[in-house]
Amino acid sequence: MATHTIGLMKEKGNTALQDRKLQDKARFVSKLHPGDIADHLEDMDAEEARKVFNLLDAEIASTVLLELEDQAKQELIERLSDNRLAEVVEEMESDDAADIIAALPSEVAQDVLEKISPEDKEEVEELLRYGEETAGGLMQAEYLAVETHLTAAGAIEKLRQNADSVQHVHNVFAVTSNGHYAGTIHLYELVTAEPNAPIESLVDTGLPAVNVNLDQEEVARLFKRYDLISLPVIEGDGRLVGRITVDDIVDVIEDEASEDIYRMVGLDEDEKVFDPAFASFRKRVPWLLLKLVAVSFAAALVYVHKGTIQQLPIVAAFLPIVGGIGGDAGTQTFTMIIRNLALGTVNLGDTRRMLLKQLFVGMQLGLLVAIVAGGAVYAVERVWGGDPRLSIVLGAALMLNFLIAALAGTLVPLMLVKLKVDPAVASGLFVTFLTDLLGFVFVLGFASAVMSKLVAASSVAAG
Amino acid sequence: MATHTIGLMKEKGNTALQDRKLQDKARFVSKLHPGDIADHLEDMDAEEARKVFNLLDAEIASTVLLELEDQAKQELIERLSDNRLAEVVEEMESDDAADIIAALPSEVAQDVLEKISPEDKEEVEELLRYGEETAGGLMQAEYLAVETHLTAAGAIEKLRQNADSVQHVHNVFAVTSNGHYAGTIHLYELVTAEPNAPIESLVDTGLPAVNVNLDQEEVARLFKRYDLISLPVIEGDGRLVGRITVDDIVDVIEDEASEDIYRMVGLDEDEKVFDPAFASFRKRVPWLLLKLVAVSFAAALVYVHKGTIQQLPIVAAFLPIVGGIGGDAGTQTFTMIIRNLALGTVNLGDTRRMLLKQLFVGMQLGLLVAIVAGGAVYAVERVWGGDPRLSIVLGAALMLNFLIAALAGTLVPLMLVKLKVDPAVASGLFVTFLTDLLGFVFVLGFASAVMSKLVAASSVAAG
Repeated sequence: MATHTIGLMKEKGNTALQDRKLQDKARFVSKLHPGDIADHLEDMDAEEARKVFNLLDAEIASTVLLELEDQAKQELIERLSDNRLAEVVEEMESDDAADIIAALPSEVAQDVLEKISPEDKEEVEELLRYGEETAGGLMQAEYLAVETHLTAAGAIEKLRQNADSVQHVHNVFAVTSNGHYAGTIHLYELVTAEPNAPIESLVDTGLPAVNVNLDQEEVARLFKRYDLISLPVIEGDGRLVGRITVDDIVDVIEDEASEDIYRMVGLDEDEKVFDPAFASFRKRVPWLLLKLVAVSFAAALVYVHKGTIQQLPIVAAFLPIVGGIGGDAGTQTFTMIIRNLALGTVNLGDTRRMLLKQLFVGMQLGLLVAIVAGGAVYAVERVWGGDPRLSIVLGAALMLNFLIAALAGTLVPLMLVKLKVDPAVASGLFVTFLTDLLGFVFVLGFASAVMSKLVAASSVAAG
Repeated sequence: MATHTIGLMKEKGNTALQDRKLQDKARFVSKLHPGDIADHLEDMDAEEARKVFNLLDAEIASTVLLELEDQAKQELIERLSDNRLAEVVEEMESDDAADIIAALPSEVAQDVLEKISPEDKEEVEELLRYGEETAGGLMQAEYLAVETHLTAAGAIEKLRQNADSVQHVHNVFAVTSNGHYAGTIHLYELVTAEPNAPIESLVDTGLPAVNVNLDQEEVARLFKRYDLISLPVIEGDGRLVGRITVDDIVDVIEDEASEDIYRMVGLDEDEKVFDPAFASFRKRVPWLLLKLVAVSFAAALVYVHKGTIQQLPIVAAFLPIVGGIGGDAGTQTFTMIIRNLALGTVNLGDTRRMLLKQLFVGMQLGLLVAIVAGGAVYAVERVWGGDPRLSIVLGAALMLNFLIAALAGTLVPLMLVKLKVDPAVASGLFVTFLTDLLGFVFVLGFASAVMSKLVAASSVAAG
């Protein structure tokens, strides 16, 4: 009993000590940039991270939360009370708030929405209506706009009044009296303008505004094309409803690249490196089962030709050479095509030019590899015995398979685009299916032909 | 003779007509945004593009040139006179001018440098000293800086005086009297500040400055981490020497993603989709010859086991199944690891956690695929005859090869990182080499074991 009490006291003492430590940690990290605080939280265990996070000022905490890696962010959010979540979300720009709330279980989301200010709630609910990968899904409802009839000094006065409501302002938008987008005013122009200059004279009308429904990849392309810092977003009637800032576009570009990389090898774009193993398993099963079906055709082809292989077992050794190299050549080709489609460097109109180019490259590569591999087999057969004509079987099969790789590697992704399927998703399966299967057809077909001549020759000899 | 003259006159008439058409085209496109002009030029043949380009105002032309795709840009530059090139380069920001000049043949580069203003020449030569993929290589020499002892009104007056010398200003840098970086002033703060406010009170000292030698991937990471629009660049002694703007970072992020995608499949990161075929051929040869060496080991292994294959030819059909699926499983694993290393989500310290996770996923996938594939073989053998134990050979080989795929797919890229080699470059070759070779070892080894039991059994039966 006594021991127990002591134990309890000790525990209390530890808790007080731990609390002090936590407060020290919170005090230490709160002086850092939110991005760096996020780094520190990621290195703590989830419970400690929650405690330190809860000791942070709500405004800093809101930025920290957004800077956390997906995994750590999710773990932390799951541990926060609805009240703390609401406090933190309240401090966020509307687009970030909407992203956080969209990822919450619907009950928690509803509860948090009820706890933030009615104005913020309305903005967030408005944003949640748009598709996640559209301009509307990327935009924030906070922006600064001035009417075109003002002077520079009048506009600056208006900005001063709203100084605290909007962050990260680099451009001001010009709007007509009924709220339609009329152009962009660069802050730098505004600062250096004569106080009496009419706003109209400062407006850049050449910059685009985009519709809320535009796909985020198109939005990213506009940012790159026009070197934009922010982009106004309008409804169908021309009414300005929000803006997209370049920091979100940087994320879009990185996400789209990751998506392409993952899809090319049959990974789900949402798979995270530390997802639970079973979640990763489920996401990878479909591709691998499809692959199993694809290679089964090649396997069946081999089995059908078992007679050839029993008589000329070296032919079985040719198969991984022709399949492996053909697969890599095809993968290189479709990767080149898919990446350039994604970057917008090429489109379907360039099909003929791309195909001719890839066929030429394939021909040259095929010739070289066929000579090297065929020559090696020839040398081996001369030294250790065997039919030197088999070197021609290997060389010819390699040569032809390079042409298949060029054809399939170019046409498969382009056909998928035509069918409005993301070419990154399925090109890998189709192209390697074709190079495997046809590569095997060439090897086994040519080998059978050589063999029937051998048989014919030996029967002539026997006769 | 008469005919000849008429022909000549007609030609002259055509030329005049063509000139008019070109001028119309130039007039039409000159009203568009430079990015859109670039689009139009890309659709013209090279000679027409040159003519229209030469009719453009030098300032617009300079932006157009920068917006062209690499291929079209190079073709156009090759056709421009040194005088026109100098005229256009003169209008560019120093970082873009340096990039263009760095890509010119050295004689042309020297000639162009002589023709631009001595001041621009000096700036460009300064920038050319830095590595292309460093902060110095990305930065431009144009920026606005004010000393910290000024007031807001004084700073604005200074900006007004320099209004035309610098474009795309979103931040102003604060410097000490000896030119050392002291912090960043957001234009928005400056606009909305009281005229008498001291600049010191407006300076954000929490934002980073980077050394000229920092790698561009690190620079991009800072932009993402701090949601930056521009970043000051300093020499080792703290002297401010330039700035990097976010539009260049967008390009860096896209280029780094392309680089990873290309390297993963053995493509050179500089290969362009419309490079001459022979140039592409030369860039792809090394990888494919290395692949040839790699698959030759697998082929040799098959040949060594030709006895097994002659007696049990179905085993030859198992090889593409085990090799193909193992290769894809390994590729999925190393892709996940490499992409997360590139994004900075994981590092070498996470090795154990990544390995355990991937082994777990591999075990689950291996079990499923082994059961499906082994089950199919079992069913086939029951119906059409054959040794049902061979289904266990296939299943066990698949299962083990999934573990190899997880091990190699995780450890190969991490080891390459440790050796300071880009893991994207060689993981593909090594991982598929291991899954092919060991997959074949399992299939052929287990098959030999089954066979020797068969032989033993039949000799017992015979005995």
